[in-house]
Amino acid sequence: MAREISDDPPHREMDMLLSAGERISAALVAMAIHDLGHNAISLTGSQAGIVTDQAHTKAKILDIRPHRVQKALDEGKVVLVAGFQGISTITNDITTLGRGGSDTTAVALAAALGAEVCEIYTDVDGVYTTDPRIVPEARKLPRISYEEMLEMAATGAKVLMLRSVEFARRYGVALHVRSSFTDAPGTWIVQEEENMEQAIVSGVTYALEEAKVTLHRVCDKPGVAARVFTALAGANINVDMIIQNVSEGGTTDISFTVADDDVLTVTSLLCGLQEELGFERLETDDNMAKVSLVGAGMKTHPGVAAKMFEVLAENDINIEMISTSSIKISCVIEKQHTEQAVKALHQAFGLEAEQIEHEETLGR
Amino acid sequence: MAREISDDPPHREMDMLLSAGERISAALVAMAIHDLGHNAISLTGSQAGIVTDQAHTKAKILDIRPHRVQKALDEGKVVLVAGFQGISTITNDITTLGRGGSDTTAVALAAALGAEVCEIYTDVDGVYTTDPRIVPEARKLPRISYEEMLEMAATGAKVLMLRSVEFARRYGVALHVRSSFTDAPGTWIVQEEENMEQAIVSGVTYALEEAKVTLHRVCDKPGVAARVFTALAGANINVDMIIQNVSEGGTTDISFTVADDDVLTVTSLLCGLQEELGFERLETDDNMAKVSLVGAGMKTHPGVAAKMFEVLAENDINIEMISTSSIKISCVIEKQHTEQAVKALHQAFGLEAEQIEHEETLGR
Repeated sequence: MAREISDDPPHREMDMLLSAGERISAALVAMAIHDLGHNAISLTGSQAGIVTDQAHTKAKILDIRPHRVQKALDEGKVVLVAGFQGISTITNDITTLGRGGSDTTAVALAAALGAEVCEIYTDVDGVYTTDPRIVPEARKLPRISYEEMLEMAATGAKVLMLRSVEFARRYGVALHVRSSFTDAPGTWIVQEEENMEQAIVSGVTYALEEAKVTLHRVCDKPGVAARVFTALAGANINVDMIIQNVSEGGTTDISFTVADDDVLTVTSLLCGLQEELGFERLETDDNMAKVSLVGAGMKTHPGVAAKMFEVLAENDINIEMISTSSIKISCVIEKQHTEQAVKALHQAFGLEAEQIEHEETLGR
Repeated sequence: MAREISDDPPHREMDMLLSAGERISAALVAMAIHDLGHNAISLTGSQAGIVTDQAHTKAKILDIRPHRVQKALDEGKVVLVAGFQGISTITNDITTLGRGGSDTTAVALAAALGAEVCEIYTDVDGVYTTDPRIVPEARKLPRISYEEMLEMAATGAKVLMLRSVEFARRYGVALHVRSSFTDAPGTWIVQEEENMEQAIVSGVTYALEEAKVTLHRVCDKPGVAARVFTALAGANINVDMIIQNVSEGGTTDISFTVADDDVLTVTSLLCGLQEELGFERLETDDNMAKVSLVGAGMKTHPGVAAKMFEVLAENDINIEMISTSSIKISCVIEKQHTEQAVKALHQAFGLEAEQIEHEETLGR
């Protein structure tokens, strides 16, 4: 509706408009629950005490003042809070939280209310060892640590937004991701515990929207790399992996990956700095994908990386770039090999259903 | 949407739902004005300081605290207030104002802000001497007093809700009713002034939704009539005209008119009281209409009523009931004669365009 009226509607008015949807849903669901014989009330983000900063359309939650929610719960009511929205501090304007804002609202409220668990009902029934559309044998994970879930979200798992998981981790809110369509338990995302069975590898993830940018023969003097990435950061471009390989004659090659949407911006930005940076040429390749292994057990099990490289090599898949964290290994490969790589890794690290079910049987 | 979910949705939730529409409109209009190069902001009823009672879906305005509106105006902004809604005192819930609520919001804000005039833009270009669909010669009134407008609204004129006019009168807000589609001036509704040309008759109105109820041979003892109308009031039934004509043998007939929607309720209610009231039989006729003359000049010009009866008689239209105020005369007639009566009265009291234009010419 806004686009029909304006190419660039004011963000404040966009928020006034966008906040209406969740309010309508909350009111309608409250009516439905009321008809089922329960006492239900809807609350706007503002009424629920979701206080945000003033960054319209992408506001951050600053504080939760849930006394109205608490009061209604104490009165035995079912409370429907319009998610994705809040009220800005000082200006008291309606704000929206941007991507992942609805889940984040739920997690933030659960934290403020000291809830035992925050259940996220969605269109999948949990977090899987990998994308079941690629690997039918993929297994639903009964539980996973915040850190693993963060790495999985960061490396391509779509089930939860990084932002809400980060929020849950910071405030220690147990998340239960489950299906809206069944009562089957889903996946619990919780604090890592000593007694928590630590799979060496919990999941295989992939991201297709990767592009590789290479600056050839950058003169190798101090501060050049810093200059490059400061410029990119200034343009709000998210750089994922970086490699710098020293080459002969006092020059180096700098390669890094960005979201393929950003390739054009990056190109024009850096070409504008060519003289200052003194590189020979800039090469881009948006035909890249990233395949990752995530698992808390990696911390205590060396050799996972070696095995990953081996599996990819056996499949004649060339590794362009590598990055690791204590619980994650990512490899950038050609997009065309993604499915093959995911299947091979899932199989090689024994993530299929049968095998795990077998282990669980032994566990009893 | 609500009806699809529930036959009897909670009023509080209806208000949460219904308030969304005006918010969406306000935001979209603010965007449009912004695109025209002006600084515009939308405010919800709550942000605009519209404080109401807690009667959801038909709330009354208790107070206006327009400091946000005033501040935005002082900053040179165009302010779009979502009408028809407010926030309830004490409970701080979203309320809606019910029928006429949008106009009433505008009038209330104009009063609170001390505006010179409250312009109501609508789909007709003003208040006419009668319904132009019935009388093509009907004339647009340049100005009319609050009292006349109230009587016209009360007797069937649809252009403004009684409620918003009453509000304007109480706070002395000048109303200007005009068309959304032209810049032509419409009708000003203002305080009656000495120097204000007082047409003897300003307009002819009609209402078709009338029903007549008669209680035959009610035993004529004190308090019976009171009992009847207390019972009706208790059922929220609006009684318009009442006649009681003494008949022989210590009994009387009581007739009154109600909205024809209420006939069934009235019948069952009064039949339940037949023993107590001791009437012989109850008769209803929902084939009635009410035709009215409204004009501030009547106060000082006797004989208007006589002329009205005469005109109806000449047209063989039987008068069932009559009620008068200082500036209004209403006659209940059979519905089928409504159009004929309106035409004859409009003509007899010289309300056609030419003649008035002529008078105005003389006036110069």
